[in-house]
This record gives sequence, C-alpha cells and structure tokens, in this order.
Amino acid sequence: MSERSYAIIGTGALGGFYGAKLQKAGLDVHFLLKSDYEYVSKSGLVIESKDGDFTLTQVNAYNDVEKMPPCDVVVVALKTTQNHLLPQILPPLVKDDGVVLVLQNGLAVEEEVAKIVGNVSIIGGLCFLCSNKVGEGHIRHLDYGQITLGGYASGYDPTGITDKMQQIADDLKSAGISMELAEDLLLGRWKKLVWNIPYNGLSVILNARTDELMSYIHTRKLVEQLMYEVAAGSFSCGRIIPDSFIQTMLDYTVKMKPYRTSMKIDYDERRPLEVEAIFGNPLRKAHSRGVDLPQISCIYQQLKFLDEIRKVGDRQNA
Amino acid sequence: MSERSYAIIGTGALGGFYGAKLQKAGLDVHFLLKSDYEYVSKSGLVIESKDGDFTLTQVNAYNDVEKMPPCDVVVVALKTTQNHLLPQILPPLVKDDGVVLVLQNGLAVEEEVAKIVGNVSIIGGLCFLCSNKVGEGHIRHLDYGQITLGGYASGYDPTGITDKMQQIADDLKSAGISMELAEDLLLGRWKKLVWNIPYNGLSVILNARTDELMSYIHTRKLVEQLMYEVAAGSFSCGRIIPDSFIQTMLDYTVKMKPYRTSMKIDYDERRPLEVEAIFGNPLRKAHSRGVDLPQISCIYQQLKFLDEIRKVGDRQNA
Repeated sequence: MSERSYAIIGTGALGGFYGAKLQKAGLDVHFLLKSDYEYVSKSGLVIESKDGDFTLTQVNAYNDVEKMPPCDVVVVALKTTQNHLLPQILPPLVKDDGVVLVLQNGLAVEEEVAKIVGNVSIIGGLCFLCSNKVGEGHIRHLDYGQITLGGYASGYDPTGITDKMQQIADDLKSAGISMELAEDLLLGRWKKLVWNIPYNGLSVILNARTDELMSYIHTRKLVEQLMYEVAAGSFSCGRIIPDSFIQTMLDYTVKMKPYRTSMKIDYDERRPLEVEAIFGNPLRKAHSRGVDLPQISCIYQQLKFLDEIRKVGDRQNA
Repeated sequence: MSERSYAIIGTGALGGFYGAKLQKAGLDVHFLLKSDYEYVSKSGLVIESKDGDFTLTQVNAYNDVEKMPPCDVVVVALKTTQNHLLPQILPPLVKDDGVVLVLQNGLAVEEEVAKIVGNVSIIGGLCFLCSNKVGEGHIRHLDYGQITLGGYASGYDPTGITDKMQQIADDLKSAGISMELAEDLLLGRWKKLVWNIPYNGLSVILNARTDELMSYIHTRKLVEQLMYEVAAGSFSCGRIIPDSFIQTMLDYTVKMKPYRTSMKIDYDERRPLEVEAIFGNPLRKAHSRGVDLPQISCIYQQLKFLDEIRKVGDRQNA
C-alpha cells in the first residue's frame, strides 16, 4: 500500500472522481471543498460510475487550506478560471519533496504553477474523462477516465519517464485508473489541443454538438483547418504532430456518439469559460515564436466576447 | 420628364422604396411581385418615410415577368439568394439598348448578370438604405437612402462615368434620392465590404448589435482585423483601400446608434443569408489571385453552418 498522501484541490466532477477512487483503494486522501463542504463533511461522496457505483460515507473534507496537512501529492483539479487562487493554496500544502499534479486543460498551466511552488516537482496530467457533478458530493462518471502523465521541466524540456511519474501512476493504477506515461508533456498538451480547440470553441460559438459540426461540410472543413493551425503552433515549439494524427482525430469524432463538449456544458451552465488556458496560452506561445494562428485567434476573440458579455449581463441581473 | 421606363425586380424594402419614389416623381415604373401581388395590384403601395409619408393607390403590378413590357432600366432588387431566378426574368424584360441596374449586396453580382444578358449595359448600385417591409405593400424607410452608381465592364475594368450612369442618376435624383457616381465599381464594392463583412458576419454569429461588438475589446479588435483582410482582398484585385478608410469606418460605427445589421435581421426573420455574395465571392476572388483571407474564411464557414442547419431544421419542422 502506497504511503503517499494526496490533497485534492477542487472536489468537482474531475477531482472528486479521481480522489474518491484513490481513497476507495486505501490511500490517504484530503479533499478541499467550497460550496459542498458542509454536505460532504457530514455525508461523504457518492460516485455513480459506469465501472460500478460506490459511496464513501466518511472523507477528510476541508474548507480551509490552512487546516489541511501537508501532502505528498497535491492534485490541482480546479478549472483554470480559478487559478488565481493557487498562490494561496499551494505553498502551505505541498511537502518539500512533494509533487504538484496538474490535472487541467490547456497549455502552460504548469508554468504558472512553477512560478508559485519553485523547485517542487510538477507533473502534468491529461485527463480523458467524461463526468459531471449532479448534486452536492454526487458525481456521475459517464465514460473514459484515462490519465496521461508527463513531467514538467523549465521551458517544457522533455523529462522522459521519472521515478515520481512512475510512483504516482502506480498509485492511480491501484485505484483502477487507466494510466499512460508520456516522455514529452508539451507534445502531449498540444496533441490534446488538436481536439479541444476546434470542438470546444465551435460548440460554444455555433451552439452545436460534435456530430452537427462533423455532418456539415463547412464546419467539418473549419475543424480540420483549426487542427492544422494547432499543429503549426506545436511545430513552433519544436513538437511535430503528424497529419495522420489529425486524420485519426477527425475519424474518431465522426464515430463518437453525439457529444456536448465540456466548454459547451460550462457555457450552458453559465460558468466562466477556460478561454485563456485552451486558446489564449497556445496563441501567445506560438506568437512568441513568430507564428500567427489567425483562425484560432478568430475563435479566441469570439469566445472572449461571449464569455465577457455573459458576465456583464449576469452582473446586471444580479 | 424622363422617357425611360423602369422595371423593379423584387418589390420589397429596397426595390419597393426606390420604385415608389420613381413613380411618385412621374416616371413609368413596373413592379414585379410575388407574395404581395394580389394586395398591391388592388391597393397600391404605402411608404412611411422619415422624408415624408406617401401612398401610391395605383401601381403597375405583375406576378409574371412574361406580362411585363420591356423596359429601359431593369432594377434588380432581389436578395442575392434569389439570383437563380434571374435567367428567367432578365432576358425578356430588358430592351436591347437598355440597362440592368444591380442594387444588391456583395461582390461579383454584376458578373452573374453579365453571363445572362450578354451585351446589355450593366450598372452596379451600392445602396446605403435602412428600410423594412412591415406589411403587404407597406414599407417603412428609417434612415439614409443614398445610392452610389458604378459602371460594369468585363473583368471589372473601371468604366469612368458613362452617359447611362449620368441619365439614371438624374432620374433617381429627380425622385429625391441622393446620388453619387463612382469611376471604379469594383473599388466601391470592396469598400462597402469593409463594413459589411465584419458587422454582418459577427452580428449573426455572436447574436450582437454593432454597439456591443464595438464596446468589447476582443470583438473590436476582430472587426479591425477583418477590415484589414478585406483591404488585402481588394489589393489582390489591384484596388487600394487606405488605412484611413478603415479607421473612418471604425469611428463611424462607434458613433452610430445601436444597429441590428441586415444579415442579422434576415437571420432573426429566418430568411436565407446572403453568405455567398458577401463572403463567398470575395474569398473566391482573392483566392483566384493567390491571396487567402483566413479570418473571413472562418466567418464564412461559421455562417454557412448556421444558414444550413437552420434550413434543415425548418424543413424538418415544416
């Protein structure tokens, strides 16, 4: 049994799911909560999952990071729109020889964490998970669940497979989570953007599911063009995404059942959109290397408008 | 008094307004109608206008082009989405030494007309008109009304100011319409697209008025980028649009009262969008000269999706 303790920052659809799986497997897990704190500290967590439902009647729940014990692995499972909270949360929580595991979308999020925790090990995780929070302390896991881990080093130099990556992967595997290890985190993050940028962006702007985007010739073509722009951005960072990968993503999406993207769900639920992590950071990364991505830039500006005009409207209606 | 007879093809917010003004000034005008034919042939046309209301109790109304007399000036005032009807309408209607006056949006519409009527003179008109059809034979003129005329020659070679342009401008001026003459129709059409492409496109895609697009920094920037792409398209055709013109359009729009664009009105009223004339033709024109306009292309593909998925939905609900 692993001796490592885990802190889950953000006990929602993603953090709650993975954290509960770890506790169920016998690991020492500590959950930071906000709105669900009262309920979860009394009643625990309920996981409905395609792999089997389970309930944790008792969990270590906190609503104040100062009350949490320092942990070996601090799992960042907030939406990136909450990352302004990390400078308060991370320093007291992570042990000197600990690890921050960043399970977030987009690009360059590990760089932000590195600015906060300095020399602590940072590992990025790319999650392929379809789950929702359906009530207080109640998470519904619909599909997938795999995590790909990659080590972070300054400037996103590839780290290869480190001991710490292997240890954490072993813990997660012991909890029944399908794991892969990547030698080059930045390449992995750009590859994930090949899917996330076109489908998340267009689903919000055009109020459409993946099957609708793929069944009309003009959006199908636009999706493909956006994917090639992501590959151009990746190439500007010295990471090559082959054309065959793009073709595989297109074919895979055509075969998927109709899917509402996570950004579309956020938009429909009137939550802030992760525009900067998924669109702004890749644009800036490529731009800093002299490469413009005009169509991704168009999508980014449209999303920023939709996100901001919604917030203004909500403030006026409040 | 002018001896020239006028046929109005499309007696809607635009054709009905200009045609009624011509008849009121004493010219011989013949109106082609579709849905409003019964009503207008009995009751005539009512024009509410900021320049003064008036009623024409009796007009020459037709629902069949075969019954119309050949005219000296055939005014094409259909939406471009109806241009597939022109091969049936134009040849019997225009006199051998007559003129087709194309009062439509977008680019390259005169080329389509030239394929149909061969050697007949073609003049393009750029209308700055804000009017709506509010009922059968009932048009409300809200603002503006100026027309800029430009002669069409094969390949859009500039024609300078021709006698026929001058004659038609005199007829329209006699009807109280503010007129300008342009020596280079293609330059005029590209300049009009500087406004039409960003505002018409983004207003539909982002469900926004002009003031909203201009008051958020990201859409304001995107509008400006799209304007510069229009200028690049114009330049590919050898027509130079100076930066100062773009700045003037931006300043002018900031000062305008909140405006719902004509394409947004079409979309809200569930009418087909003029995507090909306003977006597709400029893209193809630039592409044929080796110039890609990636952000206009993005907008075009988004609009095609919205236009088509709407039509499919309407057919399924019919």
